[in-house]
Amino acid sequence: MLIILKIGTTNKQILKIIQGIEHLGFKARISKGSQRTAVLVHGNIGYLDAAYFNKFDGISKIIHISERLKMVYRENNPSDSIVNLGDGVKFGGKESQIIAGPCSVEDKDMIMETAGFLSSRGVKILRGGAFKPRTSPYSFQGLQEKGLVYLADAAAKHNMKIVSEAMDEYSLSLMAETADMIQIGARNMQNYSLLKKCGQLDKPILLKRGFNATLDDVLVSLEYILAEGNPNVVLCERGIRMYGASKQRSILDFIGLSDFKSVSHLPIIVDPSHCTRDRSKVPNLAKSAMVYGCDGLMVEVHPNPDQALSDGPQSLDFNQFDKMLIDLKKLSKMSEKPLKIFD
Amino acid sequence: MLIILKIGTTNKQILKIIQGIEHLGFKARISKGSQRTAVLVHGNIGYLDAAYFNKFDGISKIIHISERLKMVYRENNPSDSIVNLGDGVKFGGKESQIIAGPCSVEDKDMIMETAGFLSSRGVKILRGGAFKPRTSPYSFQGLQEKGLVYLADAAAKHNMKIVSEAMDEYSLSLMAETADMIQIGARNMQNYSLLKKCGQLDKPILLKRGFNATLDDVLVSLEYILAEGNPNVVLCERGIRMYGASKQRSILDFIGLSDFKSVSHLPIIVDPSHCTRDRSKVPNLAKSAMVYGCDGLMVEVHPNPDQALSDGPQSLDFNQFDKMLIDLKKLSKMSEKPLKIFD
Amino acid sequence: MLIILKIGTTNKQILKIIQGIEHLGFKARISKGSQRTAVLVHGNIGYLDAAYFNKFDGISKIIHISERLKMVYRENNPSDSIVNLGDGVKFGGKESQIIAGPCSVEDKDMIMETAGFLSSRGVKILRGGAFKPRTSPYSFQGLQEKGLVYLADAAAKHNMKIVSEAMDEYSLSLMAETADMIQIGARNMQNYSLLKKCGQLDKPILLKRGFNATLDDVLVSLEYILAEGNPNVVLCERGIRMYGASKQRSILDFIGLSDFKSVSHLPIIVDPSHCTRDRSKVPNLAKSAMVYGCDGLMVEVHPNPDQALSDGPQSLDFNQFDKMLIDLKKLSKMSEKPLKIFD
Amino acid sequence: MLIILKIGTTNKQILKIIQGIEHLGFKARISKGSQRTAVLVHGNIGYLDAAYFNKFDGISKIIHISERLKMVYRENNPSDSIVNLGDGVKFGGKESQIIAGPCSVEDKDMIMETAGFLSSRGVKILRGGAFKPRTSPYSFQGLQEKGLVYLADAAAKHNMKIVSEAMDEYSLSLMAETADMIQIGARNMQNYSLLKKCGQLDKPILLKRGFNATLDDVLVSLEYILAEGNPNVVLCERGIRMYGASKQRSILDFIGLSDFKSVSHLPIIVDPSHCTRDRSKVPNLAKSAMVYGCDGLMVEVHPNPDQALSDGPQSLDFNQFDKMLIDLKKLSKMSEKPLKIFD
Repeated sequence: MLIILKIGTTNKQILKIIQGIEHLGFKARISKGSQRTAVLVHGNIGYLDAAYFNKFDGISKIIHISERLKMVYRENNPSDSIVNLGDGVKFGGKESQIIAGPCSVEDKDMIMETAGFLSSRGVKILRGGAFKPRTSPYSFQGLQEKGLVYLADAAAKHNMKIVSEAMDEYSLSLMAETADMIQIGARNMQNYSLLKKCGQLDKPILLKRGFNATLDDVLVSLEYILAEGNPNVVLCERGIRMYGASKQRSILDFIGLSDFKSVSHLPIIVDPSHCTRDRSKVPNLAKSAMVYGCDGLMVEVHPNPDQALSDGPQSLDFNQFDKMLIDLKKLSKMSEKPLKIFD
Repeated sequence: MLIILKIGTTNKQILKIIQGIEHLGFKARISKGSQRTAVLVHGNIGYLDAAYFNKFDGISKIIHISERLKMVYRENNPSDSIVNLGDGVKFGGKESQIIAGPCSVEDKDMIMETAGFLSSRGVKILRGGAFKPRTSPYSFQGLQEKGLVYLADAAAKHNMKIVSEAMDEYSLSLMAETADMIQIGARNMQNYSLLKKCGQLDKPILLKRGFNATLDDVLVSLEYILAEGNPNVVLCERGIRMYGASKQRSILDFIGLSDFKSVSHLPIIVDPSHCTRDRSKVPNLAKSAMVYGCDGLMVEVHPNPDQALSDGPQSLDFNQFDKMLIDLKKLSKMSEKPLKIFD
Repeated sequence: MLIILKIGTTNKQILKIIQGIEHLGFKARISKGSQRTAVLVHGNIGYLDAAYFNKFDGISKIIHISERLKMVYRENNPSDSIVNLGDGVKFGGKESQIIAGPCSVEDKDMIMETAGFLSSRGVKILRGGAFKPRTSPYSFQGLQEKGLVYLADAAAKHNMKIVSEAMDEYSLSLMAETADMIQIGARNMQNYSLLKKCGQLDKPILLKRGFNATLDDVLVSLEYILAEGNPNVVLCERGIRMYGASKQRSILDFIGLSDFKSVSHLPIIVDPSHCTRDRSKVPNLAKSAMVYGCDGLMVEVHPNPDQALSDGPQSLDFNQFDKMLIDLKKLSKMSEKPLKIFD
Repeated sequence: MLIILKIGTTNKQILKIIQGIEHLGFKARISKGSQRTAVLVHGNIGYLDAAYFNKFDGISKIIHISERLKMVYRENNPSDSIVNLGDGVKFGGKESQIIAGPCSVEDKDMIMETAGFLSSRGVKILRGGAFKPRTSPYSFQGLQEKGLVYLADAAAKHNMKIVSEAMDEYSLSLMAETADMIQIGARNMQNYSLLKKCGQLDKPILLKRGFNATLDDVLVSLEYILAEGNPNVVLCERGIRMYGASKQRSILDFIGLSDFKSVSHLPIIVDPSHCTRDRSKVPNLAKSAMVYGCDGLMVEVHPNPDQALSDGPQSLDFNQFDKMLIDLKKLSKMSEKPLKIFD
């Protein structure tokens, strides 16, 4: 911790600050610049709470050198983490993944049809919501347990892995049994109780960034999972809301992708569907994200988007998905992390 | 629903849109302006999903007239709701309330001492966290069950009501037994599963607005509680985060206070402590909020803030609280909603 | 204009509103829905100010159908505008352009060297600041008149067009004589006096979007130029600031690119340098923008970025620029708007 | 400047950094903590550009200790600045001021009538726009020169000072002759050329904070004026725009008021009219600001707001202004900075 003093702080005030530091069991090192003096606190391991120093006069500002968190930083874990779903399906390696499927599992046939289509294109991970947090309590809330069964059947038939959202302890317990990867939605990104429970599971977690979460907020949430013992976490950037940036709901934080990669060792994927809310923009945003660099994509696909019970406007139909894949295939060859599905 | 057409939309395109509306069982009424045509949809009760109309050409934009929500609006419930904690302690009437107490219950003595002090000043509602969502998984997470017992003892001794935060189903079940009002924190504002469970209880709920929740987000969350059958909900404005608006964490949305009152019938109170993060600013912000108009205040008070395990920098000590009360008393006389504690 | 009435508005109140509309010389058409009534105002050409209706009771909200602006919308001008700098250098057609050069013209040699390098790669437009708005009044403010002469000499020698920033009337008058395209910076995006003067010139204008300008703000600023008679305007997206979205200054509004194209007929280009503030991210962001779809790029290039007097950290050196071009060339082949420089 | 090194930085890397610092003519002081090493740069007077250090390996982050600006900080000028308009009309002392008047000067009679009313209530400063930046180029742009003459006549007759907005060099030159205080609007807050010209005048300046300016942005703009030699500057907080914080345009940054006072020695006033855009909220916001603490208020008043050519919805009529004054008078007695008009 570095304590920057005000210009004109007296020796008596400095002395009190030093005594305060020594009272905590640490050492103070004074450094007098041409304009002002700074006090470096030595001997602490990890983050010190600045509140303790509120009572001292003469302090201009306090700068933390040690970080508050431990496991999420690349500094503490220099090599990229690999999150393994089994059978060679991995996030975070030299390749990138694509997750696809409908917003919600609406019935048995539609998820089976979608799984069939996607697996024929090489997609290895099927998404589909069984428990849905909706923007109205009166909207369709998902098929619940039944939806999860349909999803699991479709994946089993077509040899795919599944990712689906848990909203609370009950749905989390179901997902822990059935899903290959458990999604925590943007609205629950700071539901620390749920994150702790995710940390106690032996299942990969897909954490979606909150609508307005800063990078620091995201790191705290990831640490809540890691600290409980589950190292298998993938972050999903889905855009952050902005006051009038565009008429859509969100704006994708591209620069955040590379910032996150430089700060943390965990994989990060991009969801262009929720960001745009408009299927006509999904393919270009997906391609841009791949060109910019990320560990994968999650895209909403529906056999008949105009009839979808949720997220229809942002879902691609099979033709549109195929068209997007053609372009992604070309880009994949130029990419540092080619898409796994084109092997 | 009003469908605004593009300039130059053909009659054939208009006909298809009309057929689409009639296909849903509603009526279309065409209105040709001097520049463009609009189609009003009649006969629907409640909100229609705009996604259905994506497939039609010639539409410039769609405007919703009916609202998506039902119970939270003042239009559906014109008179102010009163949330009653019993023994004459109420939110939302002609008077305003003050909730006070420490961020966390740290031990038996400190909460007993604080309750004694506050009740001697007329405060009727004691706050104190037993389960704490902290910005690091390694920080003090509250005394849990024990903390709640200490809080209840202190309140019983001094004849106060208690409000404390629930973070998940377990802590919610404890609060349902012990607390007089259950707080849901800003990070859980969109934890719809938890909100639904709050809606099934027969206890008043204090919902804190999320760091970056819009007014619309807040209304949805409130509706999730109301829709399950619990009408006793109070909203707490605690400031919203803003990119560099100030060096503090938040900025209090004063105008949002009156906007909320005009849109909804529910009470709204202000938390100046979390908004400022700085005790020197708490009294002035509290006074401003009272002058602007709100249904109450929630203020952090601690016998020895510099030793507090959480939120010390923003907690008032007893002297500072007393000083603030003197000013609030003067302002209370001028206010449309005088503070209840000065009776 | 559509006036949505409150549930329960009386016939007497409705009558007064109708009389008010007729008083303005327009017609009112009543439309009674199952829940509430709406009043459509007919006969007005263009935007009506809602303030007039403040005095009437019973109004829930007012919705504008006509837009406030006239020339900037695609609806009023369906085909893409082409902004022509002469000698076949154009924005807005089937191809995209690249503008490159240093932040500031620092001396004669560096701009001549840069122009030589860029023109050898096919770049047709040289950027270079002579008048610089800096984040401190004590920083280097540009070489002023002399800088503009050096820039013009370098461009003339290498047969390039130049774009440079005007900050006020004086620098605008110099640019009007010397530059091929005049840049108005983000900080002056709402300097309407300067925009009006730009509108009176017969020179293409490059308007940079403000740090926090909404799409609506941008449209107003563009209209200020168009309304004075200058149709040759290109918008430049340079990222918008966001409270902690990332540690960089800005976040590029990709979705805004396509929103703008659908709303307006004017060309839009992307500046990845100011958005990232970090040269290591510039090439990937440039490639992403090109894949997403835009009318061009503006990139900062400097012979020796580590010695640059301004914007060094975000400037590419010649090798980095060459490397980026190799990738852009590959992407250009796949693009709907291939980069002009690869002809 | 403090350079924090990465964990594991080698001695060779540290040596290169030290040599780099010495190459600039400064001294390096190494400080080895238990986890990581920091290098303090000594001997520089004022802000060092971090870009120079980009080329060195092993640096985790760079922290500035010296500030970039000089004159705007309280540290460099500890006592509150007083901005004097003459005849005892001052900002920044023990009292607070109220500026009032219409958005625009619309004709001779209305401004004369308003001045007569306001001066009878003790208001000493009359506002009125002659040159108006509007959100559409087709809206009323002010009466220009004629408006300024009417304003000056009304003020002279009623012995008031005037403040009016300058948008460019021409209107600034008129204001320099006629106005007692020159307003620079929110849209021009970063028009550095105009600010420099303000700095060369011998007239008090009223700078409005931009819609989304951070406190740091504001300090830079103020410094641009101060650095040119004009010490008489008052800042006006008018609310900052926020993505859906409320349905109004802005949210007043109360905490920013006290932050600004602690960082800078300049006076700051509040404009509740532009912040709310709704006259029913103006009085309460004005009262709140006064209770919170500021150096004054600027309020829009119009003889007949429903007929106003601009800002009608947010303008108070005379009765409403009088009602607000009654409350302000009571609050003024309790305030640390009583309103000057009640002497």
